[in-house]
Amino acid sequence: MSTEDISSIGLGKNRIESLTDGIFATVMTVLVLGLSVPVITSANASSELVLDLESLFPNVVSYVISFVVIGTYWVGHHAVFHFVKRTNRPLLWLNMLFLLCVGFIPFSTALIGRYPFQQITVMIYGANLIAASLSLYVLLWYSNSNNRLVSKEQDKHLVKLASRRILAGPLNYLIAVLLSFLDPRISLVLYAITPIYYILPGKIDVHWSQ
Amino acid sequence: MSTEDISSIGLGKNRIESLTDGIFATVMTVLVLGLSVPVITSANASSELVLDLESLFPNVVSYVISFVVIGTYWVGHHAVFHFVKRTNRPLLWLNMLFLLCVGFIPFSTALIGRYPFQQITVMIYGANLIAASLSLYVLLWYSNSNNRLVSKEQDKHLVKLASRRILAGPLNYLIAVLLSFLDPRISLVLYAITPIYYILPGKIDVHWSQ
Amino acid sequence: MSTEDISSIGLGKNRIESLTDGIFATVMTVLVLGLSVPVITSANASSELVLDLESLFPNVVSYVISFVVIGTYWVGHHAVFHFVKRTNRPLLWLNMLFLLCVGFIPFSTALIGRYPFQQITVMIYGANLIAASLSLYVLLWYSNSNNRLVSKEQDKHLVKLASRRILAGPLNYLIAVLLSFLDPRISLVLYAITPIYYILPGKIDVHWSQ
Amino acid sequence: MSTEDISSIGLGKNRIESLTDGIFATVMTVLVLGLSVPVITSANASSELVLDLESLFPNVVSYVISFVVIGTYWVGHHAVFHFVKRTNRPLLWLNMLFLLCVGFIPFSTALIGRYPFQQITVMIYGANLIAASLSLYVLLWYSNSNNRLVSKEQDKHLVKLASRRILAGPLNYLIAVLLSFLDPRISLVLYAITPIYYILPGKIDVHWSQ
Repeated sequence: MSTEDISSIGLGKNRIESLTDGIFATVMTVLVLGLSVPVITSANASSELVLDLESLFPNVVSYVISFVVIGTYWVGHHAVFHFVKRTNRPLLWLNMLFLLCVGFIPFSTALIGRYPFQQITVMIYGANLIAASLSLYVLLWYSNSNNRLVSKEQDKHLVKLASRRILAGPLNYLIAVLLSFLDPRISLVLYAITPIYYILPGKIDVHWSQ
Repeated sequence: MSTEDISSIGLGKNRIESLTDGIFATVMTVLVLGLSVPVITSANASSELVLDLESLFPNVVSYVISFVVIGTYWVGHHAVFHFVKRTNRPLLWLNMLFLLCVGFIPFSTALIGRYPFQQITVMIYGANLIAASLSLYVLLWYSNSNNRLVSKEQDKHLVKLASRRILAGPLNYLIAVLLSFLDPRISLVLYAITPIYYILPGKIDVHWSQ
Repeated sequence: MSTEDISSIGLGKNRIESLTDGIFATVMTVLVLGLSVPVITSANASSELVLDLESLFPNVVSYVISFVVIGTYWVGHHAVFHFVKRTNRPLLWLNMLFLLCVGFIPFSTALIGRYPFQQITVMIYGANLIAASLSLYVLLWYSNSNNRLVSKEQDKHLVKLASRRILAGPLNYLIAVLLSFLDPRISLVLYAITPIYYILPGKIDVHWSQ
Repeated sequence: MSTEDISSIGLGKNRIESLTDGIFATVMTVLVLGLSVPVITSANASSELVLDLESLFPNVVSYVISFVVIGTYWVGHHAVFHFVKRTNRPLLWLNMLFLLCVGFIPFSTALIGRYPFQQITVMIYGANLIAASLSLYVLLWYSNSNNRLVSKEQDKHLVKLASRRILAGPLNYLIAVLLSFLDPRISLVLYAITPIYYILPGKIDVHWSQ
């Protein structure tokens, strides 16, 4: 497979990052469209409205979780691309694959928000997050293996730490999907707490802050 | 909590501002999706359509108010970030919290536009604006306390004026929420006039124009 | 009213143009959401689908017209801002007013696409375009009168030509709204041909190409 | 037709590319809104939900295909604009025409995803992709013929290769539309495999990587 430099056709790192940022901004906003305003038909509008809004609570929770999860992907993507020095066609399309997975999250979020205790929606949500995380990992792996698209001075230990950190997510999500066979509510808890791991600083920060 | 410099992984101030701008642009546009085109079924389409469009009037008003409110948040965010010199992980996630609150506004706007005289929707709208304003205040406070992320020459008096100006909003919105127990229409008036305070120039401008 | 320079709080011309570009990009994309996929219920799905898609034809036409109209606003906005050298608070909020009008177009487009031959929708669409055009004119007028925000060397003749060109639009739209009392179809034709005036080069281009 | 330089009114190449990037990012995200969350009414919610989600499978496939197709347009647009040195009014509006076609794809994608085996939706989807590809070709042709907007040193052989590469798409899509008279499923297969041609490197890459 060709690894020609595509910055020669105007597709340097900046352009790819700019499309990525635009898609992230839109995906994070479109999430909220999964919450639909209740349609009240009964005479006793006030109490029916309160009940309907209470039933939207899982949607609000899934909005918050997905917003934070997508935020961690955005941070992860910038960390991966920070070390990328050259672009090529495979990197471009691996990045598209990552964006395709991220762009699907508003749908799986609306789904799990509407049917939070159904195993099928819990599995679809988990599969979506696993796919997004793995495609981010592939981006890291592809650009770093054989120093393909990074500088020769790239710190190998840092890449190893970053790989582990990225892979911790899909591992958690996989466990969540498997535990959905016991009880989908356990999966929901795991989905909610995994992003916290990424928000809190880790071993890797020691290297970055140096 | 670590306060390492995250511009070392490509997450400098510019990147965070760029994501923020993208989300603001999309949120301001998505607002209009809260207005749905009426579906006419009767034989007398013309007069039914006029009636249905008249019933959309509260939605139009809430669109205008929210558009202006979000505009004031955009101005406020840029003012806060103008003085930020360094970024770190907590700032990044406090900013995400702010964006999460702003991103929720299209839903609470559609809600209050559809049911303008119900206390529950008036309270949800107010709570959303209070959360967004407070998270903006926390961004200002976090970056300025102990000169954490601003320059040492940062004018303390200016920060004090800015803090007061930002906190005036949630105070007004809190009063609006409390007055909704008397009559939700009083709250609506307060929501409509609060942004005017931010559009008009204030004491703080004297400092900025120098 | 204060006319302090707001680039001192990070709201220079570039930032305002960047938010404007983001809103334009989203508005132009959100237009297509006014077309909804038909829901087929009958046994004879194939022929019902063709009929339903034929009934979407006015929606497609209104999508194309609005896309082009918004394109002319985008061009006009950049022409107006090209001569702006300073920003201030009133300019910022006049620009927000312009964006508020532009952001409303997806709704009025969906409305006229769904009910193309009803006078009320024809009038709402026209009023929306008139409001957007006039707010763009006010931006031009505000920044140029007394050389408020432009350089002192600003060519007065060019501003006069630009003013006339911008005002030709709302004049046409006003005529279209008035003619809707005779027959809404005349208005539709006027809405469709007005943007052509802006796409074709005019007297003003002689000045720009020099 | 005038070919005046419009960068003199602030509409240089960068501005047009920036609007284009914003529209691409939003279009790629809005695609997912074509998938609607099922509404379950029966008592046996769990099994009904699984069935409803299975019926969404064609929507997921059309989401993936369109995401990749739009990705190829984005790459193609940057390649075309990479050689553009000047902008003028016709280029601006030819670019708007291209964006208008790309902006329509979320609708035709939702349509073919909802009714994958109906000839009419297969034809509309194909016509949309043909229109987008041809308008991209016209952009390439217009800017290169007589070296209108490119440098005099522009490699003619490279333009010829790029033209052929861009035109291969609409040719495939035209064949797909014609084969829909035999069986719409053949067309679907052609739509799915055509983007692969653009993802894989071609003859043209030899020139770019030099």
